[in-house]
Amino acid sequence: MKKMRDHILKGNMSKWDLDTPALLLDMDVFEANLAKLSEYCRKNNTAFRPHVKTHKCPIISKKQISSGALGICAAKTSEAEVMADSGIKNILITSPVITPYKIKRLMDIRKNTSGLMVVVDTVKNVTDLSEAAKRNNLKLDVLVDINVGDDRTGVTPGKPAVDLTKNILKSDGLRFRGIQAYAGYLQQIHGFHERRKRNIECMEKAAESKHLIEKEGIHVEIFTGGSTGTYNINHNVPGFTDVQPGSYIFMDVEYLAIGGKDSPENLFEDFIPSLTVLSTAISQPVKGTITVDAGVKSFATDGPNPVLKGISGISYEFMGDEHGRLTFENPSREIKIGDKVEFLVSHCDPTVNLYDNYYCIRNETVEDIWEVSGRGMSQ
Amino acid sequence: MKKMRDHILKGNMSKWDLDTPALLLDMDVFEANLAKLSEYCRKNNTAFRPHVKTHKCPIISKKQISSGALGICAAKTSEAEVMADSGIKNILITSPVITPYKIKRLMDIRKNTSGLMVVVDTVKNVTDLSEAAKRNNLKLDVLVDINVGDDRTGVTPGKPAVDLTKNILKSDGLRFRGIQAYAGYLQQIHGFHERRKRNIECMEKAAESKHLIEKEGIHVEIFTGGSTGTYNINHNVPGFTDVQPGSYIFMDVEYLAIGGKDSPENLFEDFIPSLTVLSTAISQPVKGTITVDAGVKSFATDGPNPVLKGISGISYEFMGDEHGRLTFENPSREIKIGDKVEFLVSHCDPTVNLYDNYYCIRNETVEDIWEVSGRGMSQ
Repeated sequence: MKKMRDHILKGNMSKWDLDTPALLLDMDVFEANLAKLSEYCRKNNTAFRPHVKTHKCPIISKKQISSGALGICAAKTSEAEVMADSGIKNILITSPVITPYKIKRLMDIRKNTSGLMVVVDTVKNVTDLSEAAKRNNLKLDVLVDINVGDDRTGVTPGKPAVDLTKNILKSDGLRFRGIQAYAGYLQQIHGFHERRKRNIECMEKAAESKHLIEKEGIHVEIFTGGSTGTYNINHNVPGFTDVQPGSYIFMDVEYLAIGGKDSPENLFEDFIPSLTVLSTAISQPVKGTITVDAGVKSFATDGPNPVLKGISGISYEFMGDEHGRLTFENPSREIKIGDKVEFLVSHCDPTVNLYDNYYCIRNETVEDIWEVSGRGMSQ
Repeated sequence: MKKMRDHILKGNMSKWDLDTPALLLDMDVFEANLAKLSEYCRKNNTAFRPHVKTHKCPIISKKQISSGALGICAAKTSEAEVMADSGIKNILITSPVITPYKIKRLMDIRKNTSGLMVVVDTVKNVTDLSEAAKRNNLKLDVLVDINVGDDRTGVTPGKPAVDLTKNILKSDGLRFRGIQAYAGYLQQIHGFHERRKRNIECMEKAAESKHLIEKEGIHVEIFTGGSTGTYNINHNVPGFTDVQPGSYIFMDVEYLAIGGKDSPENLFEDFIPSLTVLSTAISQPVKGTITVDAGVKSFATDGPNPVLKGISGISYEFMGDEHGRLTFENPSREIKIGDKVEFLVSHCDPTVNLYDNYYCIRNETVEDIWEVSGRGMSQ
């Protein structure tokens, strides 16, 4: 890889000369997305704690921190390890860390980085984490994860959330920092106004729990949650402190469809797609279609199908693990065997997880190659 | 990883102590699957050329060769590179290799391994490969890829296939070895008899092309195709030489459903599932369900949902990139937070592509760790 990397970077290689399938990042667009979210948060006096589950790349996390992020979120312990090993601080792990072995891994990260936090949602886990922290002579910062309807993780809002908080305060190994509330099921509601209404209603349950905790004389420093789809919504919830956007840097076909504030019936174009997959047409067994070299192992399959960038009237469908089929309906240009084409990706997070590197493109040239260091880190 | 590997292997670690999500391979079952296919082929006087796209692991390819395989198949050039670098010979690349850069990579493999073959399906590609081989003072072995209805790659059967063959014979850099015909759309037809009937009808088109080529006085040494779903079907097609099974070593929920010869209405149990994902229950926000730590980044999403192994009455659904939800319908056992559970995977090939390692399990103990060296090699 080192040799290949040098060859590509020294040669001012055109993106069209890259071997395929390859994951491309349009640097101008990526930087504009970074700046736009940062500026929005600054102007609205709110904060952001971007999620690495989207990009799994320490270089990108560092750029997000330079653009004003409070710190970062990691979905899993192994993801947090990769980021901590790269010198990143202030990492929030957004899922409960449960087993003895994983708690050991968590303590090892805590020893080597500052500002590590993890969410908790049961008394048993509070006890386990506190005991482990005490054995390691540490204080571990925790947030109470509140279930605001996702029914995935989190304690029930109201009294159960207050009780869990009191439990944390009684635990010598832990320090209570605040709450997390994530309504995954509401992040991609189509149409800004409906999305706004339902997210605010939902997040108010968490705000109410925060209020109940504060009524006990407990300081709630952090109230975090939300995502790219609600970056301009959640800060209107009383007491909300910081949003956890992931996809805003890249965007994907799934997010484009949800509709933005200024185009409620149309596309979510607050951020512009910067992430694409470059693929090559390799065979044409039947007229009116052509086969490309990117299939299930090159695009996530949990969202809508990938869409050609800059070419209209041609649709993509999966043709197994290694191939896709383009069907020409009313094509804006011809595609021949050997031609390379660029796709907007279906769902960015699991698509990135299929690649080892980003090829960073500016003015159609490869400017840099960034490793997806956290690829496959699902533990 | 080296340290972790030594720790796990020296400690006779139980599989239940592995961190999750983890990809497990039941060695007894895996070895029985290896032996069963090998014995079937030997008894039926046919050959097999197993596909590495399923496992992407040189250790497994070597075991398949030891069990009697002619060689192996690779879907992509980069996959073939990994296998050739591990000392494996007789690799067939089953998709056309088109661009100048990829043809250069192909020639580099050809220089370093013996028995490399690649399929072709256009005159232009024949010319490009022959020119490249001549520049490198090589002869490259090729098969004519025949489209038997998949409409993904391949030349039209009949005269076009014969003409392409003649073209190869006129090309100084190439040596014609035979034909490939793969009917992907027929491999998983439910019910053995219907699957048999349709595959034989379909493969007879390729057999006819083979006959037409031979009528021109050209020797067709190889007639390859098929998969796990047709391992006991294709050798009944006249002139067929070798099958390309992938999934037989692992099996998955998708393949189980297609029905076997001796259980036409039931499950395809010619081979037994050896591949599982170990996952941990991490949260229970709602009674009657529990959340596990394996989602879209731990299971392929292009097939049916994963299914719990050894536990009935509980169903799995995806809950985003990092989580899944188990719903208790009529559970055969209790699952609590912190418990580990094992899943049969949805679709084995793209699931394997999400992991760095196989944990090889015998008698519930980790016997070895094999690297998925070809992970992400989609180029």
